[in-house]
Amino acid sequence: MSARIHNFNPGPAALPLAVLEEAREEFLDFKGSGMSITEVSHRSAWFEDVLNDAIARLTRLLKLPDTFKILFLQGGASLQFSMVPMNLLPDGSSSDYINTGSWAKKAIKEAEILKKTHKVIASSEDRNYCYIPKDFSVHSDAAYLHFTSNNTIEGTQWDRFPVSGGVPLVSDMSSDMLCRPFDVSPFGLIYAGAQKNLGPAGVTLVIIRDDMLERVPKNIPTMLRYTTQSEKNSLYNTPPCVAIYLVQLVLKWIEETIGGLEAMERRNREKAEMLYGFIDGNAFYRGTADPNSRSLMNVTFRLADENLEKTFVAEALKNGLGGLKGHRSVGGCRASIYNALGLDAIESLVGFMKTFAAKNG
Amino acid sequence: MSARIHNFNPGPAALPLAVLEEAREEFLDFKGSGMSITEVSHRSAWFEDVLNDAIARLTRLLKLPDTFKILFLQGGASLQFSMVPMNLLPDGSSSDYINTGSWAKKAIKEAEILKKTHKVIASSEDRNYCYIPKDFSVHSDAAYLHFTSNNTIEGTQWDRFPVSGGVPLVSDMSSDMLCRPFDVSPFGLIYAGAQKNLGPAGVTLVIIRDDMLERVPKNIPTMLRYTTQSEKNSLYNTPPCVAIYLVQLVLKWIEETIGGLEAMERRNREKAEMLYGFIDGNAFYRGTADPNSRSLMNVTFRLADENLEKTFVAEALKNGLGGLKGHRSVGGCRASIYNALGLDAIESLVGFMKTFAAKNG
Repeated sequence: MSARIHNFNPGPAALPLAVLEEAREEFLDFKGSGMSITEVSHRSAWFEDVLNDAIARLTRLLKLPDTFKILFLQGGASLQFSMVPMNLLPDGSSSDYINTGSWAKKAIKEAEILKKTHKVIASSEDRNYCYIPKDFSVHSDAAYLHFTSNNTIEGTQWDRFPVSGGVPLVSDMSSDMLCRPFDVSPFGLIYAGAQKNLGPAGVTLVIIRDDMLERVPKNIPTMLRYTTQSEKNSLYNTPPCVAIYLVQLVLKWIEETIGGLEAMERRNREKAEMLYGFIDGNAFYRGTADPNSRSLMNVTFRLADENLEKTFVAEALKNGLGGLKGHRSVGGCRASIYNALGLDAIESLVGFMKTFAAKNG
Repeated sequence: MSARIHNFNPGPAALPLAVLEEAREEFLDFKGSGMSITEVSHRSAWFEDVLNDAIARLTRLLKLPDTFKILFLQGGASLQFSMVPMNLLPDGSSSDYINTGSWAKKAIKEAEILKKTHKVIASSEDRNYCYIPKDFSVHSDAAYLHFTSNNTIEGTQWDRFPVSGGVPLVSDMSSDMLCRPFDVSPFGLIYAGAQKNLGPAGVTLVIIRDDMLERVPKNIPTMLRYTTQSEKNSLYNTPPCVAIYLVQLVLKWIEETIGGLEAMERRNREKAEMLYGFIDGNAFYRGTADPNSRSLMNVTFRLADENLEKTFVAEALKNGLGGLKGHRSVGGCRASIYNALGLDAIESLVGFMKTFAAKNG
């Protein structure tokens, strides 16, 4: 596929080519059903196999104990910002939040709109979110501690997750889910929009622990209660079937082609080290996140001469390297190097960056 | 594609073959972007062209005045059941509902959960929803009148929409949207899950009139306010891009291949008349909906000998006719003959039904 570019989009983002090819191959006739995956019933064995295989693979990849349920919801992380306090924060209790960037701030905002008691126990807003706070104490009576595991816009990531002394962790992992193995046991709930590491836009993965389901109130709308879909294996109403199918193919690729999350992490670290290493060694570029808070997924950087950034992004695209513009709220450049990207993409990018620096330095 | 079946699924349902073929053709490289439609940014010109073309086509097909906004949301009609009263029913006012089946009942249930004042002004529950009520009076001070334009499970459809004397109509059109032209002017809001007539599961079309947007309260979660997406052309957060893209291709097919909604209606009437005509003329089968309330989209029927229904559905599938089982809540048989199905599908079905009756009658 010489026509395909190296895609550094922040989300929707690159998918493994093998996944796209498999989907294309069976697009008019899914597994001999005589129908497209877009046309099969969500209550058919064809789709239930897809759904249950996705759940089984996620369970294996994350070594998930059977105290957790896996749900496929709609509305993106943005709807989870509201569903989390609606479901998990009973009146009379309080929650803790850590503010590490634009998305964390939006999560906090929704708790405010709902007039739910919440405390921001740490923030890195003082330095434009270029670091992950290290010093904070979690209220021992908090209903949960909410944090954003990776900050897509600012290019920072929690290297080790916060220690909460038994307070359930709740995390927005939209932009680094499955980039590495981690211990799920301190988590009450994990959510992730699929469109970065998991699949296309249009489905939101939610992993919820049984004791959190017991908190869900009955007087909120049916579609906003986690119990509604947990009791129906995400089939209370018609799910986003095509998006779930593509997630299933991505999970198969992680398990069978990459070899699981340990191998995924090695690959991701190798990619990130190559790119950060080049940036650190070349005065033409500078990283924007503190080195000890850098993201494995979103590499944010500036050019020494910021006026050249627009040309940099445009010329990169001409060289088959897309999606390098920084988020409109912060400017600069960003290479999102999610799971689907291979080392070859990073090598091409570094090669281009070298040439561009030599030509314009 | 000899491997493809005639697909009478109730939803997710058949898509036009031309739509699936076009999507497959450009699946690895969308419009020369070097990316799949699953991988392009929702803020790129590539995707904005898709979104705006879908909006332009819907506007033309429905002759929509510029007092209406078109939104593409997530969560299905099931989430709209809550969003409608949350947004359009201010405290102190009351709404009217008409109960014509399982989905209407679920919409009413969500108004109840929210403790919103609502009155059920008509119901066909007395005869298992086999008809559309004709006698009812709308409260002149109602905030809106909610009805379900087509009842997928029971096989009934409003031939003419209720006259409400200025009270804004709100309708769940999930299963008959774009099956025929209609006058949008009495409507305050129309919603439709895409997975029947519009595209794949995973996107919900909402058409909302400007004066309804003025009712939206500020103290409900951001993602549940209609204003959030209406102010951002459905791009407040990442939309379900692939589903919207397939909807756009379906709209193009309705406009360019079928020739618009008048032609669509002629085609749908011809299909329905052929199937109902056969059922009425053969004692082996009987329709379950009152003739004056019959749906153009979902043809529900029983076999005179109900014990044969399981065999009927299984043998039909062997003959390349899928999805004929009735909804699990009512049993029997159902042929969903949405926009995408051509007359050839109905001819094949009638041919099979004749043979089956002759063999088993």
